[in-house]
Amino acid sequence: MTDDSDESHIIRTILRSARGPVRDPRAPGHDGVVVDPARGREVVAIDTLVQGVHFDARLDAADVGWKSVAVNVSDVGAMGARPTWALLSLALPAPLDRPWVDGFAEGLHAALDHWGVRLVGGDTVRSPGPIVVTLSIAGDAHGQVPGRGGARPGDALWVTGRLGRASAGFAGIAALDWLRRPEPPVSFGAALGEAGIPHAMMDLSDGLRTDLARLCATSGVGAVVDPLALPIAEALVGRPDAIDHAVAFGDDYELLFATDAAPARVTALAAEHGTSVAPIGTIAAGSDVVLTGRAWPPERFVHFGSAE
Amino acid sequence: MTDDSDESHIIRTILRSARGPVRDPRAPGHDGVVVDPARGREVVAIDTLVQGVHFDARLDAADVGWKSVAVNVSDVGAMGARPTWALLSLALPAPLDRPWVDGFAEGLHAALDHWGVRLVGGDTVRSPGPIVVTLSIAGDAHGQVPGRGGARPGDALWVTGRLGRASAGFAGIAALDWLRRPEPPVSFGAALGEAGIPHAMMDLSDGLRTDLARLCATSGVGAVVDPLALPIAEALVGRPDAIDHAVAFGDDYELLFATDAAPARVTALAAEHGTSVAPIGTIAAGSDVVLTGRAWPPERFVHFGSAE
Repeated sequence: MTDDSDESHIIRTILRSARGPVRDPRAPGHDGVVVDPARGREVVAIDTLVQGVHFDARLDAADVGWKSVAVNVSDVGAMGARPTWALLSLALPAPLDRPWVDGFAEGLHAALDHWGVRLVGGDTVRSPGPIVVTLSIAGDAHGQVPGRGGARPGDALWVTGRLGRASAGFAGIAALDWLRRPEPPVSFGAALGEAGIPHAMMDLSDGLRTDLARLCATSGVGAVVDPLALPIAEALVGRPDAIDHAVAFGDDYELLFATDAAPARVTALAAEHGTSVAPIGTIAAGSDVVLTGRAWPPERFVHFGSAE
Repeated sequence: MTDDSDESHIIRTILRSARGPVRDPRAPGHDGVVVDPARGREVVAIDTLVQGVHFDARLDAADVGWKSVAVNVSDVGAMGARPTWALLSLALPAPLDRPWVDGFAEGLHAALDHWGVRLVGGDTVRSPGPIVVTLSIAGDAHGQVPGRGGARPGDALWVTGRLGRASAGFAGIAALDWLRRPEPPVSFGAALGEAGIPHAMMDLSDGLRTDLARLCATSGVGAVVDPLALPIAEALVGRPDAIDHAVAFGDDYELLFATDAAPARVTALAAEHGTSVAPIGTIAAGSDVVLTGRAWPPERFVHFGSAE
């Protein structure tokens, strides 16, 4: 949902009596949750891609297959866990477009292999509307499961990779690669959890502006972000609207985390996992989430398609 | 999918390299699968309801909430397991219909409570088309996980409950209760698995004609069914089309299983779980699946809505 008040109505209403893990202080606010500590800390997540909302003709069938896995393993990595198995539900219009199914399967399996996920089963149904792809995924956390609620004043804020790659592609400034085939830093997320480094962590699915505000609200803290410290996507460097693309658009699937660990420890671990990482600011007392020297650009959470 | 060849294309293509559980001889052909024997035999399943395909205005929002849980716990019970946790994904059109969400939540939670399932999390997205509800569910199998592939010639074939209740409601012969609020015999399914009784078991989601053919094909056997032994829904008794409704329509969510256990043992266990159960025929060598004295009526897997 693009509308946070709609989403919170749904969460309040439907998840109202969710017992246990949803309210688990170790993982509040996550898209995924800890199922059962007695099961060796299994975590699970579910994510849906809707044609016309999350993808359109700019993504071919194989891209949709890849992305359905990527957005889910991103949730698992952000919980400091390693993805294990997945279940697929696919709603497809009739008559069946077999070349689309074949392409989807190719991208799906490329991503499953890339992240070492075992597809254990699934369900297919007919859709009178758009293609709807839902993947449910599980992971094993061998260490800490960081939630969004543990950030403390004085913590450094870090992000992985480069921000704005999906936005630059969407806007036609760069190739569509990252929008089509995001590569969330899952093994680094798991390693951070195993090392007990993050006080709070999440993946950047809706953009830094929106996601940092959520992390801060859940943790009961504020934050100060240095715009000059943001790792900007290569294609955006030097552009006057670079910051807008980097903070106000989603689909980057990089990690955002708060920690008081020594910077050298964080950067060394990132290097081990082939991931770049940058400190972008500091967690502060209070509730203000500030971008130093300028206002946050308006949220531009652009959906595919023209549906209202 | 109503078209078995479409579904098998999808399964061949997408589940082609599914490793382990999908090919687990203990649970072949199930909608759900055994995840990992090392995890205390956790089983998982995923099922999707699409507006206009699986429900329409005849089901109110609370019915849809109930049914989304019922069809999933039915899969888990048919694997001889007890449902434990569920994840929900909900695709909803904008603007959000809050009364619908409230009603859905009410029926969902009534069903979760009824079957003792913990909702651990979920995802909500916008749909430019119909409402799409996907539930992913897990269960614990404490005993045998019967698949569809273990039926042996000489086994007796059993079904629970009464057949044709959903069809009678759909056709306007009876109230819509069972179509709206099915109550699959989940605890009996789990108890059967724990007692090691079924050689093969599945739930009747697509009707006896279709589902028995699947069980026999997976087991490499045939079957002979006595139409006079079928437990017919009360509203259908005495009607000339009773058998048609009982065998050629889905949505009953009763259990079908094959066993060589003593009939008294099966009926006693069913009575303990408040479930009726009836022997309807015998597994035979070969591959013919026969309804004694008459042809199988044509499959009438009726979908809601008018979308072809």
